[in-house]
Amino acid sequence: MTTSLPISAQTRRPASPLGLHRVVDPPGVLPQAAWRLDPSPAIAPDEVRVRVDRLNLDAASYRQLRETYAGDPDKIRAAVLEIIATRGKMQNPVTGSGGMLTGTVEEVGPDSPLGLASGQRIATLVSLTLTPLLITDALRRWDGQSEQIPCAGHAILFARSIAAVLPDDLPIPLSLAVMDVCGAPALTSRVVKPGHVAVIIGAAGKSGSLSAAAARRAGAAQVIGVVPTETEAALLRGTGAGLVDAIVIADARDPVGLAEKVEQAGGPADVTVVCVDAAGCEGGAILSTKQGGTVIFFSMATSFSAAALGAEGLAADVTMLVGNGYVPGHAEFALDLLRTTGSVRSLFERRVES
Amino acid sequence: MTTSLPISAQTRRPASPLGLHRVVDPPGVLPQAAWRLDPSPAIAPDEVRVRVDRLNLDAASYRQLRETYAGDPDKIRAAVLEIIATRGKMQNPVTGSGGMLTGTVEEVGPDSPLGLASGQRIATLVSLTLTPLLITDALRRWDGQSEQIPCAGHAILFARSIAAVLPDDLPIPLSLAVMDVCGAPALTSRVVKPGHVAVIIGAAGKSGSLSAAAARRAGAAQVIGVVPTETEAALLRGTGAGLVDAIVIADARDPVGLAEKVEQAGGPADVTVVCVDAAGCEGGAILSTKQGGTVIFFSMATSFSAAALGAEGLAADVTMLVGNGYVPGHAEFALDLLRTTGSVRSLFERRVES
Repeated sequence: MTTSLPISAQTRRPASPLGLHRVVDPPGVLPQAAWRLDPSPAIAPDEVRVRVDRLNLDAASYRQLRETYAGDPDKIRAAVLEIIATRGKMQNPVTGSGGMLTGTVEEVGPDSPLGLASGQRIATLVSLTLTPLLITDALRRWDGQSEQIPCAGHAILFARSIAAVLPDDLPIPLSLAVMDVCGAPALTSRVVKPGHVAVIIGAAGKSGSLSAAAARRAGAAQVIGVVPTETEAALLRGTGAGLVDAIVIADARDPVGLAEKVEQAGGPADVTVVCVDAAGCEGGAILSTKQGGTVIFFSMATSFSAAALGAEGLAADVTMLVGNGYVPGHAEFALDLLRTTGSVRSLFERRVES
Repeated sequence: MTTSLPISAQTRRPASPLGLHRVVDPPGVLPQAAWRLDPSPAIAPDEVRVRVDRLNLDAASYRQLRETYAGDPDKIRAAVLEIIATRGKMQNPVTGSGGMLTGTVEEVGPDSPLGLASGQRIATLVSLTLTPLLITDALRRWDGQSEQIPCAGHAILFARSIAAVLPDDLPIPLSLAVMDVCGAPALTSRVVKPGHVAVIIGAAGKSGSLSAAAARRAGAAQVIGVVPTETEAALLRGTGAGLVDAIVIADARDPVGLAEKVEQAGGPADVTVVCVDAAGCEGGAILSTKQGGTVIFFSMATSFSAAALGAEGLAADVTMLVGNGYVPGHAEFALDLLRTTGSVRSLFERRVES
């Protein structure tokens, strides 16, 4: 095991697009699985260095720190500093989770494929758990009272990292909220074809409303939005015309009830997109989808075995996709949907305010 | 809640292809989720009645029963009888699992879409957890010493149940072993296109060897088989030429190691099929697959979130499919692969014997 930091960039083996050359301990694992990364500022030809101005800790990570140190700001600050100094990245050793960061591009290696330029304000769309990070201001400006950490330091992006330029025309919290869920509309847009019936489960939420807009833009003949309550339905109706053609109020965990209501509204679906974080929605999504159709699961509450066995038990010949958070161009696509779809923007503005 | 069995077939509401009309308690749920089904013998126009000769309990269910009753055959037999009499199906209330059955088609409703005829010997490919079942011989011939239960009684198949005719030319245990994993080769065959590089993780296993044969038949230019040990590699080599073009011995839970070896063998893959039941293979499968490629997860040990977050963390633009156990014609397709691929048959014969 290597015992001292920093390692000179000159002595490293050739850069790996995945950042394997930055892994110090244990050697040979992926950066996310590593205990310690090398955050030294000298970049490889395909890397990018970012001047960091803010960390946004994962909610679970921040909660763990706050509870462990009984809310004491000095102790929380010291703990985060210690993690970053020890590990060369912000990955809470208890929760395993990270978060994301915003900053300004400082130096771009000549072989970087990310398309970034010095001076651009960006947000990282890969987790802090795999991003080399070095803090230089002792987090002095952070009061420890929220997961938002104003800071100074630098981070390294690899060739296969993902970052998005923060647009000038949108408030940063709004852009970050869009980027957080931008995989869903991008994949929806790939799968929905002109003339399709699309069912969006959780259509009044962030990923759901973007997915509905993406289905519409892909040429869906009928977009059906499923929401759990009249309150959510009113939110969807209140956005004005056009986001969905029909609203179904149903408990997505009740397969028979959901499928019946979806059918009354014009289903079953060619493509069903699951955007609610409730467990137990697999059967309802499958049953609301035509034979030969596709279900895209974007909820992290999805159970792999419930989906696989559910489809088998229903003799449902449906294609089931694991929602991949990465589709090339996903952030730009989602930001454009927000800009051009008034109803999506108004839903996001309500949710980001609250 | 309804309190008495049987309910006369005449008073039921119209038959549902999913069997909702057989659900007694609680009403309105899917048969698998029901506490009690109605197994009365009168069939609806789209149903099929099967004379049952054998139940094959799910391994987890049998183990639970044997442990609870300390291996006492009379108590185990009484417990299974009680479950079937009370629930109208064989679903272990502790494990939630069922199993499958074999039998002979007794009566086929005029509107049944299953294509069965009276007198055919069949196996059900949907779980006992959703199959109405009535036992008439008190399981007298079962010694309680194995999960194989010789018996007499009847079961009901719905329009959307799945059953396969047991072929005359193959031993029944071999046919059942093929049918148990027949979703994997059918879906592999749909996804692999001529010229593709296919990587089969767990290629010496039952679903893996069938998937390798399916990839070959679909026109794969290169089939790479991944196995965990030299013993498994020897098994694969021992089957003679043709099942795979290259064998990789690797720990599929080590993403970097696996991807490097797969690349040396001719990868990365256009299509990677995960057929091993080990946890933690998501990253390796993703990293062994080309950008734009597809990973099919057939392992029940797959973690939905590990797959989704893993792909995002690797900036991997891969399509990830939940392996659906049902594809129309899957049993016939897999049996045909076994018949026509000597190497698959010899692998199965070794595994079914052991």
